[in-house]
Formats: sequence, C-alpha cells, structure tokens
Amino acid sequence: MVTITLLSDFGLTDPYVAEMKGVILSANPDLRIVDVSHGIERHNIAMGSFILETALPYFPLGSIHVAVVDPGVGTERLPLVVLCKLGVLVGPDNGLLVRAAERLGFKAAHQIDSQRLKGERVSATFHGRDVFARTAAKLADGLRPDAVGAVVKELVSLDIPSVSVSDEGMTCTVLHVDSFGNVILNLGEEEFLRLGLHEDRRLEVKTMHGRSSASIARTYSKIHGDQLGIILGSQGYVEIAMRESSAAARLGLKPLGQVEIRF
Amino acid sequence: MVTITLLSDFGLTDPYVAEMKGVILSANPDLRIVDVSHGIERHNIAMGSFILETALPYFPLGSIHVAVVDPGVGTERLPLVVLCKLGVLVGPDNGLLVRAAERLGFKAAHQIDSQRLKGERVSATFHGRDVFARTAAKLADGLRPDAVGAVVKELVSLDIPSVSVSDEGMTCTVLHVDSFGNVILNLGEEEFLRLGLHEDRRLEVKTMHGRSSASIARTYSKIHGDQLGIILGSQGYVEIAMRESSAAARLGLKPLGQVEIRF
Amino acid sequence: MVTITLLSDFGLTDPYVAEMKGVILSANPDLRIVDVSHGIERHNIAMGSFILETALPYFPLGSIHVAVVDPGVGTERLPLVVLCKLGVLVGPDNGLLVRAAERLGFKAAHQIDSQRLKGERVSATFHGRDVFARTAAKLADGLRPDAVGAVVKELVSLDIPSVSVSDEGMTCTVLHVDSFGNVILNLGEEEFLRLGLHEDRRLEVKTMHGRSSASIARTYSKIHGDQLGIILGSQGYVEIAMRESSAAARLGLKPLGQVEIRF
Repeated sequence: MVTITLLSDFGLTDPYVAEMKGVILSANPDLRIVDVSHGIERHNIAMGSFILETALPYFPLGSIHVAVVDPGVGTERLPLVVLCKLGVLVGPDNGLLVRAAERLGFKAAHQIDSQRLKGERVSATFHGRDVFARTAAKLADGLRPDAVGAVVKELVSLDIPSVSVSDEGMTCTVLHVDSFGNVILNLGEEEFLRLGLHEDRRLEVKTMHGRSSASIARTYSKIHGDQLGIILGSQGYVEIAMRESSAAARLGLKPLGQVEIRF
Repeated sequence: MVTITLLSDFGLTDPYVAEMKGVILSANPDLRIVDVSHGIERHNIAMGSFILETALPYFPLGSIHVAVVDPGVGTERLPLVVLCKLGVLVGPDNGLLVRAAERLGFKAAHQIDSQRLKGERVSATFHGRDVFARTAAKLADGLRPDAVGAVVKELVSLDIPSVSVSDEGMTCTVLHVDSFGNVILNLGEEEFLRLGLHEDRRLEVKTMHGRSSASIARTYSKIHGDQLGIILGSQGYVEIAMRESSAAARLGLKPLGQVEIRF
Repeated sequence: MVTITLLSDFGLTDPYVAEMKGVILSANPDLRIVDVSHGIERHNIAMGSFILETALPYFPLGSIHVAVVDPGVGTERLPLVVLCKLGVLVGPDNGLLVRAAERLGFKAAHQIDSQRLKGERVSATFHGRDVFARTAAKLADGLRPDAVGAVVKELVSLDIPSVSVSDEGMTCTVLHVDSFGNVILNLGEEEFLRLGLHEDRRLEVKTMHGRSSASIARTYSKIHGDQLGIILGSQGYVEIAMRESSAAARLGLKPLGQVEIRF
C-alpha cells in the first residue's frame, strides 16, 4: 500500500484537507493517507519546510509527500514534482520543498503541466486539491515523475543562514519553536559533537533581549530547576530547552530569530 | 474498501471521536475512516452543514458520511439515514444533513429504529457513538438503508436566506468564515458568472459596520495590497478575501451575517 | 489488520506524531494507525489516563495502544509493555497506563529492554518514536510481549481519591473537563445507580467557590434553562453539565478539583 502524506497551513476545521483526501481516495481507494501537520502558521514557508525536513525521512521508502504552504497560489510560481531517492515530493516551487528534498536525496524536479490533468477542472485558488492531490494520486498509480512536465533545473531556495562560528562562540538561527517551547536551532548534530562540550558545561546564551546562562544536558529532565538547558534534540539539531517550561517564552525567541551561544 | 467519513463538534482532545472510530473498527476492521472536521463550533448546525456540503462530493461513490452536531441529543429529534445517489448520510434530523443530501442527490430518508440495534446498549447522551457510528458500520457491512426504520417524508430544514438581487446590487448571507478569514457567501458560481463582472471591476461592499470598496480578482495573490477582493472561490461560492489577511476581521463579518454587494 | 492507537501530549502541529507514524509504517505498511488524542495537556498524566481508560475499551480486541505523556523521559522511569486481556499497552511507567490496564483486563507488565531494539538508534529525548512506536510495530508483527524484557511486578500508580460517602452526600473528584465544559466525576455508574435518585431530584453541589442547586437529568437537553444538571454520562461516570453552556466555568472546576454533592 503506497503512503501519501499531507502537510498544509489549512488547519483541520475547514473542508480543505478533507477535500484533498476525498480527491485522492476517489482516484484510488487503496491508498493510505497520513497527515504530517496542518497546523503550519499560514503562509509560513520556513515552518513548513522544517516540519517536512524532519518528519519525512521516517516514512516508508517510496512514499509520496504533498505539501501546500502557498501564498503565491495563482501567480507564476510553478507546481512541482520532486523525485528523490527515498520518495517523491509534490508542492509549490517557493522554497517549501528544498530542504526536505536534500534530506530525501534529490534526483530531479519537474513542473506539473496542468494541461495533462485532462478533463478535470482546476480552480484558480485551490491547487492543493486540484493539482497537487490529484497529481499525487496519479503518481501513486504509476505515473512517472518525469511524465508530469518539463524538468526544472533550479528550485526557488529558502534562505536560512548557516551557523557562523568564532573563537568566542556561534551565532545560530532559530529553525522552529515546538509546542513545548523548545527552541530548535540550525546547529546540527555533527557540528555540535565536534565542539566536544561535556555534560553540565555552562555556556552563555545571548539574544536581542539579553544574556542568560545555560548548561549542556542530555535530556529535558536533567535540566536543573528553573534553568536553561542546551540539548542535542531528537530532530538532529541542538535545542535550547527548559524543564516543563517554555525556553522560547523565557528568551523571547521566534523562528528565524538569532541566538549567540558563547563559550 | 468502503470509506466512512466523520464530522462533529467534539474536537479531537476528548475521547469521543476515538470511541466512534473504535466502534466502527470493532464492527469491521477493514473500513477506512476519514475525518472531515471535528472543529465545528459546538452546536453550530449551519457551520457543520456548510463543511458537509462542500467536502462530501469529493469522496468516493458509495462512501458513508456520519455527522454529529446535535444540541438536541436525547430529545425527540429523529436519528436518520439519508440515502443519496453518491453516498449515504447518517446523523440527526436537525437541518445538518439537508444541504449535503441535495448535493449528493437525495433519494430517501429513514429514521433509525434503535430497537434494531439489538443487544447493544444505547447511552442517553452519545448517539454519535451508540447510534450513528454503529449504524454506519452496519451499512458498510451491507445493511440496506431502508432496513434501518420507517421512511421520513420531510426533513427538518436549515433556514439560509437566498440572495436577493436588485438593480443596485445583491444582498448576500455569509455561509462560512474560513481559518484564513475569507468570507464565503451564499452567492453561487452560476449566479455570479451570469452577472458578467470582469476582472478588476470595482464594487461596493456594505455591512452593518460601513462601506468598503472591493475589486473582482481571479486569485488571492491578485488582490491589490491592503484591499478587499471578490473571488469566485474553490468551494463553488463567491468569497470576499484579502491578500494574506482576514477579510472577516476587516468587515466584522460572521457566519449568517448580511452583506450587500453594490454595483 | 492490526490497529495501533496513539495518544500523546505532543499536539498535531510539530513533526513528532508524524514521525511516530512514519516509524510504524516503515516497519509494517499494513498496520492501521488511529489517533486517540494528541491534545492532552502537556505532562498531564491524569488527563491522559482518563482519555485512555474511557476510549480504549471501544477498540478491536488485540489492538496495540501507544501512549506518551512523559515528563520523565530520560530519567529512570521504565518503558513498559502491558499485556491485557483485550489488548496491549505501550508507554512509560508513570501512572499513565494503570487505569486503562485495569479496564482492559491486566495480565502482566514487562519493561522494554532497549538493548533488544538492536541496530536502531535511540534518542535521549524522544522515546515515543524510538522506543514505544518501534516496540508497538514489532508487537504487531508478532513479537511476544514477554520477549521485550523482564517482568515488572508493581507499576507506578496514579493517585485519584475514591468517592467518600456520608449521610449528607458524597465528596467526588473531577476526572476530566471535556471541551463542552461538562465536569466528569469519579462517581461511577453502579455506585450512582445504587443511590436510586429519580429524575428531576434536586441536589446541592458544593465547591470551594460556593453552593449551587442541580437536578438529576437524563440528557443534556433535559436540563432546565440556565440550571446545572447531574447526568449519568456516556463515559461510565456521573457528569455535572449545563445545557449548551460550560458547567466547569460556572463552578470554577478543574481536573482533580473536589466537589461535594449533598442530598
């Protein structure tokens, strides 16, 4: 059974996600549909990108991943199918899919030629249902990714600065604040381990709101009392966290905010 | 595989939706269950009706749709099975199912005779689980809709005024405000196209809070800057929208509110 | 098809629940996954316990139930598999599973020896994905519960006081406040029926905020106007409710709060 995953900024109250599911099941009732997240902040491409990048690698080989965070629906941005070693992505060419494509092993991108969605009406405002969900169902039924339309050589990128390192420390960017208030940074596992910081080592965390002290900890429950901890999190990135409390609220940090970690 | 869809005002935090799914899967583990929405405002029959009417036509032929927005559970309102050309509806006779039944091609309605749910206990307060979900599972297993109980000739209706047109314009009713703040009106596609309004045509939108200017646009992204746009939306109805902002907040509009669109 | 249910305090916005589903489907794409609830208040073990206890008995015999509300992840608390007559529970040994295990017919508990999750990396902070979801998938594939690790003789319990009865009335504890504002008490069906209270009987409800009058009612819609009703609810417990309004807000009651019901 092929798995189709869905991610969007539609929420689960309106009929939109259900209509995408209806379209997919009407094309092939034997597909399995799994929601990745529909709680992406509206039009927040960076947030959608993070959730895709971290969640999709866990899905079965060959899964088809539909993602719609699309402020530009109806403009010239291209609808894409992105073929990767571990699966296929379907969504708009606005940066949303790039980092997930790298994680899944990018092979090639094709624009969806909506002329080929023959006999089916395509609304001007809901490509999630009329272009992306339909294309995903066809791919699951054996349509080859290179048959959807012409190759797209360069995808629209998503600008996330990389970590800048100096002798005194590192300047990091917030990738995501999760619903526990954990602040997930763009500092990856390998880069962090190379620093060789031992447990309980104290560091300084500097934001535009001030400076705080934080200690390296292995798990949330090992962070001391009301202190900040720095943890190698489960998503492959370093997190600033507190024990049963929100580090993001304490530090006043939001996605794409800057944090300096000083040794 | 038969698809059973669920809609309710229960939310997804409490055990209620899970219990309905458990009952259905215990009757037949091979059914596919899809959530349409459980975010209907509590007891808001008009909102549930809109989501059903717009989402259900996308599901596979022969799907069974369970809907529970039911302020009158435990009173004399009838539990219904409504047979349509494209599927079957199961829920209370309080107006919730009427518009969806019309969309799916109404054929006949039957009241569920709970005496026929033999050997199974029916709680006084949770017909969603004990009557509607159970009946849906039985229908999926081959029970004929006309075997659930006597024919119901006339369903309780849902009073939504139709559009009133004059030389100066149209008085419309708000059917739904989606989570993007788009205001969906009871002005249907055909009726709108008959007006022959060209793109960028300026109109006046009048509500109880005042008057605003709005332009016809083909997509959200073609609405100018901070202006209001009037769009033929993806749900088959005209929408008042803003670009990445809430038209409903700007106009102070809620479901069942009145809007005059003046030429 | 084996059903695996999931409950957590992760919410549905972050990638965490999707990653658990991905892990399960990667192990066996033919499993069916059903969400029980991911809206548990973070770290609220009592709330998670209530939802599990009430929802799980409705699922098919042999279902595998994964539950993660786990403030102590990374500490010494044990990861558990709990074998019951009607199904299997997988989650942390912190009280979360105990009441559900009783309902499903407790047989034996085993700690999960993570050495046996050979060749797979276990993160320090996300046992939901790396220990519990993986173990559930293996159990669904035929792993015997007693093969996951050593027997655990005594589980960490959850302290919920029992109802104390006197001649004047009963002191009850709030188990749950549902999203309608209904207050679900630890007063069970049998205990309540034994009192022989007839419909419309007036009682006094006393909380730390004051005294109110309430009447026995059979359904929400039979509660009079703006009054409080006492109902034998659909979850097997007595509820204090109002008609289309929140009894919890009116009485200022929260989970684990105390209520005296006086005859």
